[in-house]
Amino acid sequence: MSDVSVIGLGAMGSALAAALLKSGLSVTLWNRSPAKAEALVAKGAVAAASVKDAVEASKLVVACLLVYDTVYEAFEPAKDALAGRTLVNLTNGTPAQAREMAQWAATRGADYLDGGIMAVPPMIGQAEALILYSGAHAAFEAHGKTLGALGAAKYLGDDAGLAPLHDIALLTAMYGLFSGVTHAFALTGSETVPAEKFLPMLTNWLGAVMTWLPDMARRIDSGDYRSDVVSNLEMQAASFDNFIAASEGQGVSSELIAPMFQLLKKAVAAGYGDADQASLVEMIRTRPQVERQRAGG
Amino acid sequence: MSDVSVIGLGAMGSALAAALLKSGLSVTLWNRSPAKAEALVAKGAVAAASVKDAVEASKLVVACLLVYDTVYEAFEPAKDALAGRTLVNLTNGTPAQAREMAQWAATRGADYLDGGIMAVPPMIGQAEALILYSGAHAAFEAHGKTLGALGAAKYLGDDAGLAPLHDIALLTAMYGLFSGVTHAFALTGSETVPAEKFLPMLTNWLGAVMTWLPDMARRIDSGDYRSDVVSNLEMQAASFDNFIAASEGQGVSSELIAPMFQLLKKAVAAGYGDADQASLVEMIRTRPQVERQRAGG
Repeated sequence: MSDVSVIGLGAMGSALAAALLKSGLSVTLWNRSPAKAEALVAKGAVAAASVKDAVEASKLVVACLLVYDTVYEAFEPAKDALAGRTLVNLTNGTPAQAREMAQWAATRGADYLDGGIMAVPPMIGQAEALILYSGAHAAFEAHGKTLGALGAAKYLGDDAGLAPLHDIALLTAMYGLFSGVTHAFALTGSETVPAEKFLPMLTNWLGAVMTWLPDMARRIDSGDYRSDVVSNLEMQAASFDNFIAASEGQGVSSELIAPMFQLLKKAVAAGYGDADQASLVEMIRTRPQVERQRAGG
Repeated sequence: MSDVSVIGLGAMGSALAAALLKSGLSVTLWNRSPAKAEALVAKGAVAAASVKDAVEASKLVVACLLVYDTVYEAFEPAKDALAGRTLVNLTNGTPAQAREMAQWAATRGADYLDGGIMAVPPMIGQAEALILYSGAHAAFEAHGKTLGALGAAKYLGDDAGLAPLHDIALLTAMYGLFSGVTHAFALTGSETVPAEKFLPMLTNWLGAVMTWLPDMARRIDSGDYRSDVVSNLEMQAASFDNFIAASEGQGVSSELIAPMFQLLKKAVAAGYGDADQASLVEMIRTRPQVERQRAGG
């Protein structure tokens, strides 16, 4: 018996296994191509000949594979060995996929936790590596210390879909920020302003913008999108023309900022011209609130 | 004679005039519809009958109108009165428009400063209101104290286009951040997670992402986009499919995040698959670097 088994030794799975070993735990490994296990076996891990052997070796089984289909495929020959164990699936997927797998695990008698890793492999094992979990609460309590060896573990609730939901929400927020700063650096670079020279002004400004997010969150929760007039959507849409023209004039494609312009125009056309920025959340919902609440149950 | 004349009394122009008055300066006003001057006249400002009268009343003339064409139109009857004065244009526009107006002012013998206001009207007069200036350096030095009554004044250089360039770069970065958090709040809201509950995790995460911007800036300046393998563009493009699928599954339109996905795929197709995120700056440049440097002279 070992403390934990790790299924899948890509860059992330290998980092997970290494962090578990480093924290003094006994680790059993499985990977489709066995060569990937060698470096970890040299550090004390045990390589299993099959997923079934790996599952039988530990009460806690951590999977980190390419996609959910790969998880089903890998565990198919081991499905009768899962009863009484905890499966922690750190594979990237959607909330719907996580819920489906939670049910699949339940029918095999396994506790299920879905996880979202908010870190790149070199960060694993450090406190800065945030890992989100959702699903079986008792399993998280029982294995919290072991999972803590991978990074800062945060439990989000019983619904297995919550971890991928938050994971994807955080990553898409990050890509929005990346889109904005990429465009901004391209603009200042068009006049050969060094990015490092522009950086302090940019980070100060974005820090100021971040202090407006609590107001945005309050408006979204209350549904009170009445603008304070100074920056309603109609005024924002009117000023956006200038950003597009200036960008194209500077030799910078507007492709990353154009969708916000389109959305502002759509919001104004839909009668949100005098509303606040926060109201755009309503504009990108494709399913009405009531149905969403039912579907989210 | 007064200390400063303000041309244009929209929400922003009125806030500028009020801040100047509050700091104890004598202010002459002009607005197309004279009624807008009344409240400020009650506070001690003088209403001029024409732009020419307003220009002749002060050595420093601040314009804040709708667009640059409105500025030309307003100043046409006053153009012979501009010699020896400083025109500070805080109207929103492009770098090219600012440079053109700097030349127009120069032929009238006026010093010219272009400005970008990084604040909404209620913030004007406070230290948090950042106002960017570029153009005639001596004029900025001479009038820096007066302009300081409007907010924190930052001078960016002789080229009049630099203030609108930085203004637009900061605002487009802001809209990128807004796009990302709007999408993120819509996603978590799709499972009825309150925005205020998600907020601390979101702001902590974006704060962490912001600490990666200096690395991005260094890579852009050096042109060294070699990835550390853990998160190259090919891996990012591969994981983006999941964000789109999850968003649509949650009833959230992917319109705000889709352009980043398209750009990642375009970058991979162009051979940047093993490059770092920072390399996307190169992908949205529509004019080659050399031509840009010439054009930016």
